[in-house]
Amino acid sequence: MQLQNDLLVRAAQGKETERTPVWLMRQAGRILPEYRKVREAARDFKTLVKTPELAAEVTLQPVDILGVDAAIIFSDILVIPEAMGLNYEMEENKGPVFPNRISSAADIKRLHVASPDELRYVTDAISLTKHELNGRVPLIGFAGAPWTIFSYMIEGGGSKTFSRAKKVLYTQPVFSHQLLEMIAQSTIHYLKAQIHAGADIVQVFDSWAGILSPAQYREFSLPYIRKICDAIQEVPTIVFAKGAFFARPEMNMLPCNVVGLDWNMGIAESRIQMPDKVLQGNLDPCALYGSLDDVKRETKRMLDEFGSQKHIANLGHGLYPDIEVDKVRCFIDTVKEYSVSMRLKAG
Amino acid sequence: MQLQNDLLVRAAQGKETERTPVWLMRQAGRILPEYRKVREAARDFKTLVKTPELAAEVTLQPVDILGVDAAIIFSDILVIPEAMGLNYEMEENKGPVFPNRISSAADIKRLHVASPDELRYVTDAISLTKHELNGRVPLIGFAGAPWTIFSYMIEGGGSKTFSRAKKVLYTQPVFSHQLLEMIAQSTIHYLKAQIHAGADIVQVFDSWAGILSPAQYREFSLPYIRKICDAIQEVPTIVFAKGAFFARPEMNMLPCNVVGLDWNMGIAESRIQMPDKVLQGNLDPCALYGSLDDVKRETKRMLDEFGSQKHIANLGHGLYPDIEVDKVRCFIDTVKEYSVSMRLKAG
Repeated sequence: MQLQNDLLVRAAQGKETERTPVWLMRQAGRILPEYRKVREAARDFKTLVKTPELAAEVTLQPVDILGVDAAIIFSDILVIPEAMGLNYEMEENKGPVFPNRISSAADIKRLHVASPDELRYVTDAISLTKHELNGRVPLIGFAGAPWTIFSYMIEGGGSKTFSRAKKVLYTQPVFSHQLLEMIAQSTIHYLKAQIHAGADIVQVFDSWAGILSPAQYREFSLPYIRKICDAIQEVPTIVFAKGAFFARPEMNMLPCNVVGLDWNMGIAESRIQMPDKVLQGNLDPCALYGSLDDVKRETKRMLDEFGSQKHIANLGHGLYPDIEVDKVRCFIDTVKEYSVSMRLKAG
Repeated sequence: MQLQNDLLVRAAQGKETERTPVWLMRQAGRILPEYRKVREAARDFKTLVKTPELAAEVTLQPVDILGVDAAIIFSDILVIPEAMGLNYEMEENKGPVFPNRISSAADIKRLHVASPDELRYVTDAISLTKHELNGRVPLIGFAGAPWTIFSYMIEGGGSKTFSRAKKVLYTQPVFSHQLLEMIAQSTIHYLKAQIHAGADIVQVFDSWAGILSPAQYREFSLPYIRKICDAIQEVPTIVFAKGAFFARPEMNMLPCNVVGLDWNMGIAESRIQMPDKVLQGNLDPCALYGSLDDVKRETKRMLDEFGSQKHIANLGHGLYPDIEVDKVRCFIDTVKEYSVSMRLKAG
């Protein structure tokens, strides 16, 4: 089906657009009362993720309520380790916990390369969402980067230092590469299935990129992101590696279309280091705590710095749950209006 | 008293040294069985910090046991908010908690600029340590940077996103500057008292620098670090701003002698961006999880990258508690031996 609003896809392909497309990481979620209602009705977070009708419903909410230029399928990066054989629980106010984490090569026998059949609930949610979107805006699919998934599997949950996962990289590099390869293969199959089900573009989240030294990032993360980008030729790809400021020259060489910036990364500097990429980002989510005037001013400042082309407007991180909907809407509306006026000025 | 080993002080002043000095952040602490013994005998962490004899004892341990080129006074950056009127508890395996955090301008009335008299237990510990060191190595004093201290006072403890503290910066900038100024003044008095008591060099830790956007860092952190560095002319100063990769050109302009690098910051790039500074760091603490051969190789690689002058060897972050003493000793010994051989080669 032809997309009525294909700004995101065209911008990701590096084509000129009449205005800057905008979406937000975590746009579906706790900031919306409509989400909280669905979430309360579902037994728990994982039920929401695993019930295609519910996942589709919350995926569509920000399109209807906020007017973003894309939907992103409501899911969780940890569905991949689960499909590989490692169950997890999502604990309220605590985050994910893996009761049986991976600690050595012996544990790898408990795992397998995930088949898309095991993630049918995600592809079903995508099909359903595509149907209900009816071409209004593109649908974004996503997965975690192998290093980020690996770190959860080894740590058994979140961590301040991720020293357990890093210890494994330093002490068991061969095993680390085996596991990373299994995750990468699982992710490729998974993203291809998402695209087959209707995802118009995919994003790879390397949430814990910033934990690694440049040398380790080069050895244990980038090669697997590269494999994924190499394998995905069907749709444009976005890579968001939080904290990997040091890897920007290498990100420019990745076979992806778009690189996401976190709010720490200077825009001008990033343009210089990644001249071949469309850039996505990067307003500090906390800027949305300011007044409506502050939000407008900061959003315009960001847009001016990125310029009118090769930019997808977003935050530099996911929305925090206590950010007010009005501020989010102000961010979106400002991008829409101001990016048109920028083009008029430029023209 | 004349220092017998003044390598650290000379290196910090940018003078040539016959080998690279080495110390480690968190060198006194849980990695040492001798520390754990003293810690268990003390009622709790804060008793250890507040009892000069005990603080001096654990400060000296790594000098005797590990052979580092400096002692760093055993204390806590949160003694400053406490002296300003905001009590905290150190909860086992959880970190600091402030029962009455600061949330608005009205709360500032509960605070005052800390007087060194209120931190007498630290200066007493310094005097005692200096006496017992008997000139063997320099003693490092330290304090938290105002932004880092501010964020603890507002959050009431640690945080994943520090969104509460950042929200205050965005919504109450005038109050934020008032509080930051009070912290900066308290810190200047405190560091001067440390120097008066015998500290040979001081380090300012901006542990949460990486949480801020470049614009906010420029507005709410750097000016206060600058004030502190301007005020401290008696001894060399080190600034360690974890995650502030984006501020390196500005750090080069600070009136400090040394800038600490975290393990994410590329060495060559940092040399280019901070040509006027002595650099300190920056091995990934997790590299010490590797074998002794790995530790040697990684340490040599780091030394080669920094070169033989204008470098103080350290980690890019504090030691983690489960790192083995042998590996730490290997790091120290490798710096000592290899940095001599580098000079012979260079000569």
